[in-house]
Amino acid sequence: MNRFWSDTVRNISPYIPGEQPKDKKYIKLNTNENPYPPSPKVIEAIRKETGSILRLYPDPEASFLKEALSDFYRLEPNQVFAGNGSDEVLAFCFPAFFNPGDIISFPEITYSFYPVYAKLYGIGYETVALNNDFTIDLDRFPGHVKGVLLANPNAPTGIAIGLNEIEAFINKHHDKLIIIDEAYVDFGAESAVPLVNDYENLLVVQTFSKSRSLAGLRIGFALGNKNLIEALNRVKNSFNSYTLDRIAQKAATAAIMDKEYFAGICGRIVKTREATAKKLISIGFNVLPSKANFLFVSHDKLSGRELFTRLKADGILVRHFDMKGIENFLRISIGTDEEMEILVDRLSSYVNPVR
Amino acid sequence: MNRFWSDTVRNISPYIPGEQPKDKKYIKLNTNENPYPPSPKVIEAIRKETGSILRLYPDPEASFLKEALSDFYRLEPNQVFAGNGSDEVLAFCFPAFFNPGDIISFPEITYSFYPVYAKLYGIGYETVALNNDFTIDLDRFPGHVKGVLLANPNAPTGIAIGLNEIEAFINKHHDKLIIIDEAYVDFGAESAVPLVNDYENLLVVQTFSKSRSLAGLRIGFALGNKNLIEALNRVKNSFNSYTLDRIAQKAATAAIMDKEYFAGICGRIVKTREATAKKLISIGFNVLPSKANFLFVSHDKLSGRELFTRLKADGILVRHFDMKGIENFLRISIGTDEEMEILVDRLSSYVNPVR
Repeated sequence: MNRFWSDTVRNISPYIPGEQPKDKKYIKLNTNENPYPPSPKVIEAIRKETGSILRLYPDPEASFLKEALSDFYRLEPNQVFAGNGSDEVLAFCFPAFFNPGDIISFPEITYSFYPVYAKLYGIGYETVALNNDFTIDLDRFPGHVKGVLLANPNAPTGIAIGLNEIEAFINKHHDKLIIIDEAYVDFGAESAVPLVNDYENLLVVQTFSKSRSLAGLRIGFALGNKNLIEALNRVKNSFNSYTLDRIAQKAATAAIMDKEYFAGICGRIVKTREATAKKLISIGFNVLPSKANFLFVSHDKLSGRELFTRLKADGILVRHFDMKGIENFLRISIGTDEEMEILVDRLSSYVNPVR
Repeated sequence: MNRFWSDTVRNISPYIPGEQPKDKKYIKLNTNENPYPPSPKVIEAIRKETGSILRLYPDPEASFLKEALSDFYRLEPNQVFAGNGSDEVLAFCFPAFFNPGDIISFPEITYSFYPVYAKLYGIGYETVALNNDFTIDLDRFPGHVKGVLLANPNAPTGIAIGLNEIEAFINKHHDKLIIIDEAYVDFGAESAVPLVNDYENLLVVQTFSKSRSLAGLRIGFALGNKNLIEALNRVKNSFNSYTLDRIAQKAATAAIMDKEYFAGICGRIVKTREATAKKLISIGFNVLPSKANFLFVSHDKLSGRELFTRLKADGILVRHFDMKGIENFLRISIGTDEEMEILVDRLSSYVNPVR
C-alpha cells in the first residue's frame, strides 16, 4: 500500500492467469491454448509486415480486419469492434454500457475475470448459482439488473446453452444488455452471432486466442448492433487510439480468411476431446459434457488439489481453481492426441496404482 | 446515442489521432514517427518469434523486457511497468493514482489526450496557461491538486524543461504525484529517470514509438518507485493480463539492447532537425526551440490552415491543431534529410511565390 494509490487500487483483487512456466518444459494443458500452430498464411502475413513499416503507427480503426470479420460473419464492418484480446474487449464493455452503481449479473461459476472488471470500474454485480449438474438456469437471472454476462460455452465447465434458449432469454430481457462471451464457441457450441441483426440488446465477444491459435498475439472482437459498437469505439478512442499493432492486425486478417485451416484444427480438437472424455470416464472420472477446447473433470476419491500436484510433478500442467463448489475439479485443455494419451495414462496410474 | 450507452460514453470526446492515409503516398510528417527503420536486431527477433509459439499466451509480466529496461536505465525490474503503448500506460495512471473527483493539472497546451483520459475516468483537471513564448512556468501550477502531468519535451511545442527545474518542482510538490511523459526525451532533452530512486512521487513514462522506430508495435513503459509500479500492475491485471503480445515483447527487448543503433538514429534526427529549423528561420518562419523529433512552426503572413492544406495538396502531411493559441502553427515531424528538403522547398515556394 502506498499514499499515492487510488481507492480502486486499494480495493481490487487482480485476476491471476494460469501460469506460463519458465522453469521447465511441461505438457501445457492449463490455459486453453490451441495445440496446433497458426495457419501458414498467418505466418506469411507476419513475415510480410516485418520490416521498415513497423516504424509507422498501425491503422487505428483496424479496417481490413473489421472487413474480414464482417465478411466471415455476414455483418457490416460497423457491427465489428476489435481489441487487444477479448479480455480488453470485455473490459471496455463495463465503462461503455454501465454506470458506477449499476448492477450486472453473471453465473456464480464462470470466467473469474468478470467480477474483477466490475470492481475495477465500480460496477455492482450479482451472481446466479448454477444447477447441481453445473448447467445454467437462465430463469434464475434477476429482473432488476442492467445487464447479463454469459460465457457460452461456460468456463470452466465447458457446458453450452443452445441457441433457442439464448434467443428466448434475449427476448425476455429486451431492456437489458446481454453480453455473450463466446471465447470457446468454435469447438461445437451454437453461436449467437446470427441473432445480432435482430436484437439491439445483444453483444457477442470472441477471441483469436483459442480456435485461431493466436493467444500469443492478443486479438479479440465484439459483434453487435452498430450503436453498441460505437460505444466501444468511443471508450477505446478515449483510452488508446492504437490498441492493435500492425502485426496483430495482419495476422488476424489472414487467420480469419483461412477458413479451411480453421475448420480443420477445430475438428481435430473436438475429435480429441470426445475421445479423451470417453477414456477418462472409462477409468472412473466424472467428466462434464464439454463444447469447449477443455474438459472439466473430477474423481470421487482423489481431490482436485492432489491430482493437480501429481500431474505437475509428472510434467503435466492443468488448471485447478481453489473455489467452493469446484475445488475437486481440474480444467484440462485439449492438446494433441499424443499429449492426451500421456495425460490419461498418468491419471489412470493415480486411480489404479497397482495396475 | 443509444439507450445502452453509459453516462461516460455519452460525455466523452475521444482523442483523434493524426491521419494514417490510405488514399495515396504522402511524405508523412504528421504523427512523429521515426523516418528510419527499427534496428536489424529487432527484425531478427521478430522473425525468430514468428511460428508455432504464437499459439501460446505471452509472458503476462513481460519479464525479459522489464529486465532489459531496468538494465538500460540502471533500475530494478520492479521499478518498470510495460504496456501497450505509452497511451495505455498513461491511461492506467488515472485509475491507479486518482479517485473520481480528484483534480490533476497539466499545461493548457500539451498532448491533447490528457483531458480525454481524465473525462474517461471521471477525474477533474485544471489546465495552466503557457507563457507567451510557449514555455511552461512551473510556478503557476496550483497547490491543491492531487497530481501533475507534464510532457517533457512538451507537445506540440517541442520545448523542454531542464532537469534542475524538474527536480525543484518534484521537491516542492512532494505531496503530489508528478508524472513526466517523456515520449520525445531521446532527441536531446534531459530525462528525469535519474531522479526515480530519490523521489517516491515521480513517475516517468516513455515509449518505443518514436526513438525506437516501433510505433507499429505499440510498446510503452513507466519507471518509478516500486509502489507506483505495483499500482499500475494491479490496474493492468484487473483489465487485461496480457497487454503486450509475444512479438512486441521480443521486438522491444531487442530494441532496448541495441544501444548503438538507437544512438545513431537519434543523432541523425537531431542533426536534421537543427538543419531544418535553420532553413525555415532563414525563409521567414517562426520556429520554436525543439528538443523533440518535430518542429512547431508558424508564419506571420500565412495561416496554419492554409499551410496545412497547401502542403497536403503537394503530397506532404503535417499536423495542424484547430485550437486557440496554436491555430497558426504546424507541427512537422522530422523525416529524412531528403524529405525535409522537399518540405522546405515547398514552404519556401508559398512564402516567396515569385522566386
